[in-house]
Amino acid sequence: MYLTKTRKFAPLKINKMINISLPDGSIRQYESGVTPMDIALSISEGLARNVLSALVNGEQVEASTTITQDATVQLLTWNDDMGKKAFWHSSAHLLAQAIMEFYPNAKLTIGPAIENGFYYDVDFGDETFSEKDFEKVEKKMLENAQKKSEFKLHPVSKSDALKEYANNEYKTELIQNLNDGEITFCSHDNFTDLCRGGHLPNTGFVKAAKILNAAGAYWRGDEKNKQLVRVYGITFPKQKDLTDYLNLLEEAKKRDHRKLGKELGFFTFSEKVGQGLPLWLPKGAALRRKLEAFLMKAQQKAGYEMVVTPHIGAKELYVTSGHWDKYGKDSFQPIKTPHEGEEFMLKPMNCPHHCEIYKSAQWSYRDLPKRYAEFGTVYRYEQSGELHGLTRVRGFTQDDAHLFCMPDQLLEEFKNVIDLVLYVFNSLGFEDFVTQVSLRDPDNREKYIGSDENWEKAENAIIQAANEKGLKTVIEYGEAAFYGPKLDFMVKDALGRKWQLGTIQVDYNLPERFELSYIGADNQAHTPVMIHRAPFGSMERFIAILLEHTAGNFPLWLAPDLFIILPISEKYQEYGEKLSRFLENSDIRGLIDNRNEKTGKKIRDAEMKKIPYMLIVGEKEAENGTVSVRKHGGGDLGEMTMEEFRNMITKEIEVN
Amino acid sequence: MYLTKTRKFAPLKINKMINISLPDGSIRQYESGVTPMDIALSISEGLARNVLSALVNGEQVEASTTITQDATVQLLTWNDDMGKKAFWHSSAHLLAQAIMEFYPNAKLTIGPAIENGFYYDVDFGDETFSEKDFEKVEKKMLENAQKKSEFKLHPVSKSDALKEYANNEYKTELIQNLNDGEITFCSHDNFTDLCRGGHLPNTGFVKAAKILNAAGAYWRGDEKNKQLVRVYGITFPKQKDLTDYLNLLEEAKKRDHRKLGKELGFFTFSEKVGQGLPLWLPKGAALRRKLEAFLMKAQQKAGYEMVVTPHIGAKELYVTSGHWDKYGKDSFQPIKTPHEGEEFMLKPMNCPHHCEIYKSAQWSYRDLPKRYAEFGTVYRYEQSGELHGLTRVRGFTQDDAHLFCMPDQLLEEFKNVIDLVLYVFNSLGFEDFVTQVSLRDPDNREKYIGSDENWEKAENAIIQAANEKGLKTVIEYGEAAFYGPKLDFMVKDALGRKWQLGTIQVDYNLPERFELSYIGADNQAHTPVMIHRAPFGSMERFIAILLEHTAGNFPLWLAPDLFIILPISEKYQEYGEKLSRFLENSDIRGLIDNRNEKTGKKIRDAEMKKIPYMLIVGEKEAENGTVSVRKHGGGDLGEMTMEEFRNMITKEIEVN
Repeated sequence: MYLTKTRKFAPLKINKMINISLPDGSIRQYESGVTPMDIALSISEGLARNVLSALVNGEQVEASTTITQDATVQLLTWNDDMGKKAFWHSSAHLLAQAIMEFYPNAKLTIGPAIENGFYYDVDFGDETFSEKDFEKVEKKMLENAQKKSEFKLHPVSKSDALKEYANNEYKTELIQNLNDGEITFCSHDNFTDLCRGGHLPNTGFVKAAKILNAAGAYWRGDEKNKQLVRVYGITFPKQKDLTDYLNLLEEAKKRDHRKLGKELGFFTFSEKVGQGLPLWLPKGAALRRKLEAFLMKAQQKAGYEMVVTPHIGAKELYVTSGHWDKYGKDSFQPIKTPHEGEEFMLKPMNCPHHCEIYKSAQWSYRDLPKRYAEFGTVYRYEQSGELHGLTRVRGFTQDDAHLFCMPDQLLEEFKNVIDLVLYVFNSLGFEDFVTQVSLRDPDNREKYIGSDENWEKAENAIIQAANEKGLKTVIEYGEAAFYGPKLDFMVKDALGRKWQLGTIQVDYNLPERFELSYIGADNQAHTPVMIHRAPFGSMERFIAILLEHTAGNFPLWLAPDLFIILPISEKYQEYGEKLSRFLENSDIRGLIDNRNEKTGKKIRDAEMKKIPYMLIVGEKEAENGTVSVRKHGGGDLGEMTMEEFRNMITKEIEVN
Repeated sequence: MYLTKTRKFAPLKINKMINISLPDGSIRQYESGVTPMDIALSISEGLARNVLSALVNGEQVEASTTITQDATVQLLTWNDDMGKKAFWHSSAHLLAQAIMEFYPNAKLTIGPAIENGFYYDVDFGDETFSEKDFEKVEKKMLENAQKKSEFKLHPVSKSDALKEYANNEYKTELIQNLNDGEITFCSHDNFTDLCRGGHLPNTGFVKAAKILNAAGAYWRGDEKNKQLVRVYGITFPKQKDLTDYLNLLEEAKKRDHRKLGKELGFFTFSEKVGQGLPLWLPKGAALRRKLEAFLMKAQQKAGYEMVVTPHIGAKELYVTSGHWDKYGKDSFQPIKTPHEGEEFMLKPMNCPHHCEIYKSAQWSYRDLPKRYAEFGTVYRYEQSGELHGLTRVRGFTQDDAHLFCMPDQLLEEFKNVIDLVLYVFNSLGFEDFVTQVSLRDPDNREKYIGSDENWEKAENAIIQAANEKGLKTVIEYGEAAFYGPKLDFMVKDALGRKWQLGTIQVDYNLPERFELSYIGADNQAHTPVMIHRAPFGSMERFIAILLEHTAGNFPLWLAPDLFIILPISEKYQEYGEKLSRFLENSDIRGLIDNRNEKTGKKIRDAEMKKIPYMLIVGEKEAENGTVSVRKHGGGDLGEMTMEEFRNMITKEIEVN
């Protein structure tokens, strides 16, 4: 960011013409010193009104930054993630300004934009800040915003900066870690903050504000430090956007998988068993089995072979794999034995075991690829504060597979895996997704195991496969696993939230570490390439996301119970039981509600349980051998014979 | 045993008549002082020739023991396990006698009868004893046996006994642990040994002898003691019995599951993963899945619900269950975490987890029984020397279930479980089995958790259920688990060997320890009863036994591959592939052998792999759309159309 700032504060004003490349591929000429806002205005006034920030040569700058050389420019609006970032970063200034007006003795620390909104960590000293204070702060923020104050960055010397924050030990610490010449303050209205830049043109863009939460947070995330108050907020350019967002939060709360999981009897936790270790109840376990069966079938068609491996391995196994050196200290600690001095580890991943399975035989190039799949339960230590429902647990089951192939086969195998992942997503209703290619941090190559040459081969294969499959792809440097680059799938759920799901990783390293080999056509031993992949990621996380995505209204083929029979009185229970047996004989499973309750109550309860079909039976139905069918979520389908209902539901399941 | 001996050495000779009850229910009168052999002679001379030993009032004695009071008497022959025991115990004397003749400086220690034969632990001093020495010892044993010497027990004072064994520190140690008055020596021919009795009438019964093995064994099983040579032998009343037995051993070797498991590609072990931790290869994993699916289906019909629980639990869980106190020291040691001081254990059983699942909701009497099933993988530490293939491992998957019911429901539930176990055995071809009821050791009640009253209730329920189901039952005192009595199923395999398989256990204790409850019809909280059960026992052990029972020739519905297509040359590979796709579309899975090998070689290899059907395809078959079918184990079934073959095999699978 520093260079950009320099260009901004001391632009070379020469009236030469420069070439500006725009995202649509066009190149326009402007006078040197032009700003992104000038460019927007030259295109249309409407566009200019919406410009929040800009990317110049890929770097985010204020729309008022002058450009003095040929450059690529992307104008950022609310529709761009980076545009929102500028919006929320600027809003954090408004929040801090408002807080300081009410709490002049508070000490500000840091206040970044986050995925949804922003926060500011504040030391309120002896004062408290809680929900009752939210509204006044929100009002003040909007009041100040309406002044349409511009954000003005100006450089400050280190000694002046320290003087300014003499009474604020947090900012003092921040400043001490900066060099003279790279310190800037940002002012708007009557408020100034230590800041590196990246703001809106002015505060007037902020038309709606909400403080969402105030929670404890340690300075620098270290529990030995003082506890601050992290004030979470969000702002929008329109009041309606805020209303929509709050509705979404409300809906997300209703769909919270922890809440739904309990209501639907899917899983539970027990303090005695331990935090972060889900216990799967019958209905949740049935859903898992259905998902596993679905994936197994697809994998069988794709030439995978299922294996089963233990949940522990000798420590030596992880010394060989490199996991021990890399993660040993922060993992569940080794399991000792009463005699013989052996040490075992809970397995944190299945790959070392699958390598040993590969190694149990001698393979020829004609045998490859070998594709070993396992629903392998792994255990990873997480601090208790990090645990969250099924999305952050200490034990989870990966829908794992490892493919061992010749380097020549890598691209083809990678493409086949992409096909499998896409098939899974389509079948489960995740239609909106992007992919991320995670490559090495080119500046930190020592963080990764393996040779440069192998890394490049692997990275190229991933990019080529993703391109050939026409995936929407973002490349992220520095996000690769330590053993290889990867392709991650980020799906958007029904509420528009992004989740990281499936992952595919190329690995040239473990095959070397485990000295795996195959005999090539040349009769020589060669090292195979390995692909790790998991379309779901983990059963736990996937089911959590599926619950939140569908709000528990699963596609019929996944529903734990397909129907519930509701006899309108005790007299028709016998007919109900007969109907139940009839359907179970066709492998259509469901429930019967024989309680002494009114039919209206039974229907309401069945709706709550999200059971797809309610089958009401009374005198007429018992006489005619029929059922009166109601579909979950409203919709009376009328009376039909048992056979008609069976055929309808069988057809509906088969479609999926 | 001591009292019996007293009766024998100093019988009260009064010529009164006593009543002898025989196993057929008859009661016969004899003069006091009668011996079992006299009784046998009074029935038939043929019987008397076969009597080896006897049970008098349930206690095993020599056939020459005098009886002076009313008694129940069972005459033991080679057909009784206890008869064999007397035979082999006596043979151990013959072995010791022969050894001492060749190695006069050897020191004898102990020499008991075992399930198949007997052994004697010997300190050979500086001399060696190995396979080349077996034959001379066998010959000498038979030579001595032919003398038909009687076994004569005589009491010896402790000081005389110690004097006799002054040069044998092992016997000295044994004698020192006995009281004066309970020490007896046994003499036959020129040989005398410290012995408590239980012999054949004379050595002449032993007509065939074989030394099977000589292996190292520590005195008293403690590796700190001196290593002795354990000489294993077996003897028979006929030469043909020995020949049959050796053939059986040979056959057992061929069927050894470790050998077959490797040949069939079922499982492997890896030193890096750790000893006793099997890795299931694709074909073995497929067999596991089929067995699991089979049992799941039967369980679903019987009202079970599948759950999934983690493979670890907080240490506290096992403190509550009592496992920590009982087994903690000898188990895999607790798993520590990097922070927070938590401790977890690898789960040694699934019951505590299932108790916590039960506890996650409030149940009414109307909800019971709850039947939670899980293929739950557990880990138990075994010393490496104890490990053996799949039958003794450190990690294994139990086909576990826990039933929670009201005390009133216990008998019914227990009977239903017996039905399920019998269904499983029948489906898998184990038709010959007995059951063992394991009850408390009445003299050691403090070894068990729980109240006397609960133990009695549980023990009676098991016995009643076994009786009502008409099971052949043996009652064993002192064999119960520490938390409750149990019913074990011992099956005989195709070689006549006995294996412990399924187990059903009643448990009144864990429900109390976990404070489980249900609301009864009286609106009060009550404690449920729990049943643990596992028809297979464990997947690992069951598959090992199934391999040895079937020699890898599984019933068709379990076979990993149903067919192998053998194109007679490259030209017919395409037709082979078409045939393969046709069968796979009907869910009939198999292989294709496209190697450039002669058809004869392909057939031999397929026979080795025990694939049920070989489908030979050449010009004629490709033209007619047919296959030439060979069945594993010989048998040419001739040419048939693809459809005919499919229909035949589909029908064959369905029958099972």
